[in-house]
Amino acid sequence: MDNHTLVTPTASAVTMPMRLELLDKSNPVFACYLVWMSLLVLKMLCMSLLTARQRIKTKIFSNPEDLRLSKNSEVRFGDDHVERVRRAHRNDLENVLPFLLMSLGYVAAGPHPMVARMVIRIGASARLLHTFVYAIVPVPQPARILAFTTTLLITCFEAIYVLVCCIKYI
Amino acid sequence: MDNHTLVTPTASAVTMPMRLELLDKSNPVFACYLVWMSLLVLKMLCMSLLTARQRIKTKIFSNPEDLRLSKNSEVRFGDDHVERVRRAHRNDLENVLPFLLMSLGYVAAGPHPMVARMVIRIGASARLLHTFVYAIVPVPQPARILAFTTTLLITCFEAIYVLVCCIKYI
Amino acid sequence: MDNHTLVTPTASAVTMPMRLELLDKSNPVFACYLVWMSLLVLKMLCMSLLTARQRIKTKIFSNPEDLRLSKNSEVRFGDDHVERVRRAHRNDLENVLPFLLMSLGYVAAGPHPMVARMVIRIGASARLLHTFVYAIVPVPQPARILAFTTTLLITCFEAIYVLVCCIKYI
Repeated sequence: MDNHTLVTPTASAVTMPMRLELLDKSNPVFACYLVWMSLLVLKMLCMSLLTARQRIKTKIFSNPEDLRLSKNSEVRFGDDHVERVRRAHRNDLENVLPFLLMSLGYVAAGPHPMVARMVIRIGASARLLHTFVYAIVPVPQPARILAFTTTLLITCFEAIYVLVCCIKYI
Repeated sequence: MDNHTLVTPTASAVTMPMRLELLDKSNPVFACYLVWMSLLVLKMLCMSLLTARQRIKTKIFSNPEDLRLSKNSEVRFGDDHVERVRRAHRNDLENVLPFLLMSLGYVAAGPHPMVARMVIRIGASARLLHTFVYAIVPVPQPARILAFTTTLLITCFEAIYVLVCCIKYI
Repeated sequence: MDNHTLVTPTASAVTMPMRLELLDKSNPVFACYLVWMSLLVLKMLCMSLLTARQRIKTKIFSNPEDLRLSKNSEVRFGDDHVERVRRAHRNDLENVLPFLLMSLGYVAAGPHPMVARMVIRIGASARLLHTFVYAIVPVPQPARILAFTTTLLITCFEAIYVLVCCIKYI
């Protein structure tokens, strides 16, 4: 057997299932996580741009030095269009970041690959949907609650899986 | 010596200090980190549910489309019961997420296992306590400040440890 | 060659330099990431202390139980000096945490070492500058927008790099 073939990720994954490199892109679950993490991060950055667009459109800023950016603008708080995007953004901070951290821990705990990829895909997609029905096209409830709850439950599932795996190291 | 024993965590940690798989659940420090991360993430998710409970109890929501969720409810901001939970939640975002990220970096820097596990346990427990005295049973100061400062100092310690280890790669 | 020896990392790290351990401090890119992560986390913790300093200086707190901390203090919201620091802090949560998570994913995707270290250095430095011109010495625009946009674009670049690398695992 040639040693050099072992160092290529695919070879090591296929011929050596014992060599478990969970946090490595040769692990399809981790690669799947990386893809959805990137999509969610891009989505969160869009929220900043959405806020900026609302501020420029409504000419409402929160710092005196920003008034140079647009004529006839003012410093004011509590505008409904700006605040809706900001609430959606804050909801992302409260849910997407814990989901991303927890999913990383879940991948590191070595779950079943097929289950893990499905869990990551559903959890991340639900958050993309959540932003759509909250900040882009406000849809009547319970659309937002369903999207919100899906990711919440998946994050719980991941946390409980990791706890069961590693609780003896507490 | 049987090679198979090498893959068991304890054996590898004790007899093979050169075996440096730091971000792997075979490393007891990383496993300990995973447990406490899961607990803290579960706690943060509870804050969302606590907010929802306060909103339904006080019938105060922040979006017009949420009024369907409860009769006689209204859109209003600044209610004291809702805002207290939200401040506690925001405090979590500001402190728990940096603590979790920093602890991951700290584990990756290869600290002394016993110290590292103690540091992670204390830092995480202090945050659990912080939520209790802030959002569940408001306790007179300095209870909250002590819990807050403990995690803050531990996060600083971790950051400085990592800086000392890796500063030459800046 | 005995396959069992392959499961020991030391052997793979020493005799097989081609086996790239991306999330290990032996990888200079990851070590560089660790340094800048520590600096950014320390900076974020300073924001908490800056807020506390503003609260004590202006004697304005947000919880009734905090009034014990300073004589003649009151519970009030919306003070300009406190709110500026809090806006800067929230901006950190919205941008620094995604940058740190995304950079971790980017490092794990195995980018070119020189490019990766440059990208991490610029993205992190821009955030340090952002805090300076926002919360410490308010500087006329577009100083803050430039710092903000730099990190935003770098985070986008990292996300797109990871997507291109791993999109087939979606």
